[in-house]
Amino acid sequence: MFEAAELGRSVSKEDYEAKVPKLRAGLLEAQFRLRSSKLPVIIIVTGADGAGKGDVVHRLNEWLDPRGIDTQAFWLTSDEESERPPYWRFWRVLPARGRIGVFFGSWYTRPIVRRLAGKLKNRELDAELDRIAGFERMLAEDGAVIIKLWLHLSVEEQARRFRDVEKNPEKHWRILPTDWHSPKLHSRFREISERAVRHTDSAVAPWQVVEAGDDRYRDLTVGQIVLSALRAALKQKVMHGPKVTAKRTPRAAGVSVLDRVDLSQALAEDDYARKLEKYQTKLNRLTWAAYEKRRSMVLVFEGWDAAGKGSSIRRVTEAIDPRLFRIFPVASPTDEERAHHYLWRFWRHLPRAGMIRIYDRSWYGRVLVERIEGYAREDEWKRAYHEINDFEEQLVEDGMVLGKFWLHISKEEQLRRFKQREEVSFKRYKITPDDWRNRAKWDQYSAAVNEMVRRTSTKSAPWTLVAGNDKKFARIQILKTICKSLEEAL
Amino acid sequence: MFEAAELGRSVSKEDYEAKVPKLRAGLLEAQFRLRSSKLPVIIIVTGADGAGKGDVVHRLNEWLDPRGIDTQAFWLTSDEESERPPYWRFWRVLPARGRIGVFFGSWYTRPIVRRLAGKLKNRELDAELDRIAGFERMLAEDGAVIIKLWLHLSVEEQARRFRDVEKNPEKHWRILPTDWHSPKLHSRFREISERAVRHTDSAVAPWQVVEAGDDRYRDLTVGQIVLSALRAALKQKVMHGPKVTAKRTPRAAGVSVLDRVDLSQALAEDDYARKLEKYQTKLNRLTWAAYEKRRSMVLVFEGWDAAGKGSSIRRVTEAIDPRLFRIFPVASPTDEERAHHYLWRFWRHLPRAGMIRIYDRSWYGRVLVERIEGYAREDEWKRAYHEINDFEEQLVEDGMVLGKFWLHISKEEQLRRFKQREEVSFKRYKITPDDWRNRAKWDQYSAAVNEMVRRTSTKSAPWTLVAGNDKKFARIQILKTICKSLEEAL
Repeated sequence: MFEAAELGRSVSKEDYEAKVPKLRAGLLEAQFRLRSSKLPVIIIVTGADGAGKGDVVHRLNEWLDPRGIDTQAFWLTSDEESERPPYWRFWRVLPARGRIGVFFGSWYTRPIVRRLAGKLKNRELDAELDRIAGFERMLAEDGAVIIKLWLHLSVEEQARRFRDVEKNPEKHWRILPTDWHSPKLHSRFREISERAVRHTDSAVAPWQVVEAGDDRYRDLTVGQIVLSALRAALKQKVMHGPKVTAKRTPRAAGVSVLDRVDLSQALAEDDYARKLEKYQTKLNRLTWAAYEKRRSMVLVFEGWDAAGKGSSIRRVTEAIDPRLFRIFPVASPTDEERAHHYLWRFWRHLPRAGMIRIYDRSWYGRVLVERIEGYAREDEWKRAYHEINDFEEQLVEDGMVLGKFWLHISKEEQLRRFKQREEVSFKRYKITPDDWRNRAKWDQYSAAVNEMVRRTSTKSAPWTLVAGNDKKFARIQILKTICKSLEEAL
Repeated sequence: MFEAAELGRSVSKEDYEAKVPKLRAGLLEAQFRLRSSKLPVIIIVTGADGAGKGDVVHRLNEWLDPRGIDTQAFWLTSDEESERPPYWRFWRVLPARGRIGVFFGSWYTRPIVRRLAGKLKNRELDAELDRIAGFERMLAEDGAVIIKLWLHLSVEEQARRFRDVEKNPEKHWRILPTDWHSPKLHSRFREISERAVRHTDSAVAPWQVVEAGDDRYRDLTVGQIVLSALRAALKQKVMHGPKVTAKRTPRAAGVSVLDRVDLSQALAEDDYARKLEKYQTKLNRLTWAAYEKRRSMVLVFEGWDAAGKGSSIRRVTEAIDPRLFRIFPVASPTDEERAHHYLWRFWRHLPRAGMIRIYDRSWYGRVLVERIEGYAREDEWKRAYHEINDFEEQLVEDGMVLGKFWLHISKEEQLRRFKQREEVSFKRYKITPDDWRNRAKWDQYSAAVNEMVRRTSTKSAPWTLVAGNDKKFARIQILKTICKSLEEAL
């Protein structure tokens, strides 16, 4: 890959000065059109030490309108970052639609550095690279333009530059002393990088190896690559427009997973009171123990309207110190959230080490309400199963305890509760016309829930189907399940 | 204050059960109306140890719709928080308009704890309390409803509870062992708290001392306080509606501060090249030194359209390692930003220790464009001077280096540059109809800039008026000023 780069290329000053104005005009024009498009752009600037990554970042900020650019350097890690899954820090700074993120450092850095330090074997590196490829594909499918620049230096040129820095430190005030490694490390770095580049060179996120021996050639080439990538993306956008697919009504399966939930299960009042006290006490102890061991927990509550999500969540939270948990109630996304991949808002709220985050509704909206109401296109909700499984896998790998609850009730029970709500004064605000509309689509939702449970009940993140016709039984089932998961984890 | 609380109050179980449904209905109704109002609500739950603060937080989440509540516990401090001015962690979690923030712990905790530990003297505590009072007033003027609950226990009742916990630890699984202090500390805590409560009891953010000896009385009282406060705020909102005041055209002063800027200052090309190299090299060294000493820097760029903000910023940033700085280009606020106090978005982007944040336009928009275009009411932009001075004072107190630049050019020079921009292909995207509209209001803006500079050039945060007719001169003036500030700070 690297060998294929044409070496020794250079551009004269005259040639450079003649070409730059046109290039800049093109870049600014593309950026201007980008703003009204829905495309987020990610430009990864990486490559050999001494190849001028920082200079390229500066140049992009000079040629493009810096007001539309967010330059991100992934360098120091804050505790808020290190206490969450490794990709959290990337998610939090992904560019919004219409903006350009220039990434100085990226998701490639950590696996390469860890391989270099011997903390990963080659096959572990490959697994990390697979994750990267999946991540980039997911962003690209969501519309992101991903431009990956690898600045390449020949071994000789790199050595020459190192000698020059050593001799004339005052000339190189832009260079951080820690940038320089030993020659031996360099050759190892080159080898690993090449593996990474080869492994993650894809149609949706291709690598561009740029010969960096001559500054003018390097910058012009980078500018042209960025310009063509932007133009190609904008053109494709115009040609296809948003894909609108007909809503497909989910087919009802034969006997579904939901059908198998035994809704007749119930608890007597005194039995309930005793168990509630028991499991709440236990949960309180376990959450403090988890806090001390810095194990986080993510709880997801989904279910039919009026299935008792709210009251079940309350039975869980009243057992937990308010310092340890926060609830994220999922409502319509804000415009900042809409300007990102749909998983962005959920990544955003992941808990820090030892803390608990409760999602009242969740990312599963993608394959439930967004699917049924047509807010997500068929290709979007279909690939969501995989995206969600990968997301949850990252949480579990990072040591989080994950609980997913579907609160199930019968259609008759729901009707009874809707009517009751309309009668009790302080519950009246809990029932809206939306609830009735959703109820009319019970069968469609049923089929979607069944498919969701089938496709996203993984070994590391299984669904718990809660028998909710009896609220008391449901609450105890939930508390018991959470306690069990925590006990197993600690 | 605390003595005045009526002790020994209690509510029978029957009475409680009779009153709760009506109270809940009222709370839910008020919360429902709140959602469509523009009022953010802050409920601070604090008070004596053992008084049941956590229980009250749970109760509020039970009686109100928890989906409209963000419970915030200010407990552990992350490094992202500790590397910024103390109020950053509060700003980042202030509730959006229409939402309720239940604060378990608050801006009161730190001053009280520091006074308790002997790190503050009484008069220093008072200064902190003044800042709190100012902060609350500012939020209230922006529409926030601030409800401050102090849960009070008599000394005897508190002692009784402590003994009970010691005897029956299993009964008190909700209580964190570290909650309990020695009796001596308790009496000291009570004394300091009383000072704090007295000092910060204001019409816009009054304290409510709630007798907490009886759980039912405590919870009912809290519920009723919250309900009346919400109703009063909603009523006021309806009665007054948003105050719309006529736009007042700023009067032109006699000889203004802007008039005194000598716009004839210029630099020859070779002099410029030499100085640019000199100050950029210096700036690079200084920013690394500041990074090592963990001193942050905030740079604010304001100026006439086409005054050269963009190119000046670039001359600054190209001297700085991309890992150390980020630019925040101020455009229209997002809806999340609009749902908060106007300073929220600027607090949001403050740099971490050792880092540099450049604001391309800034909070001064409040007293410039928002004033002239009537986006801010007269009372809003008038109080902004004070709010801004206080904000900047907090940055400087926290050790940040703050530079504020107004790039000044003459009206004739602006015209020349507008015309030039329209001619050069890659600059065409930099000129918009807005620019011409703003130019037509040159005199109004002039007067607003003069008033801004007069009112916000404080000793700790002075403005630098940049003579911008000659771009080269302007750039060197800016670089030089930044270097000087950094040198003085380090």
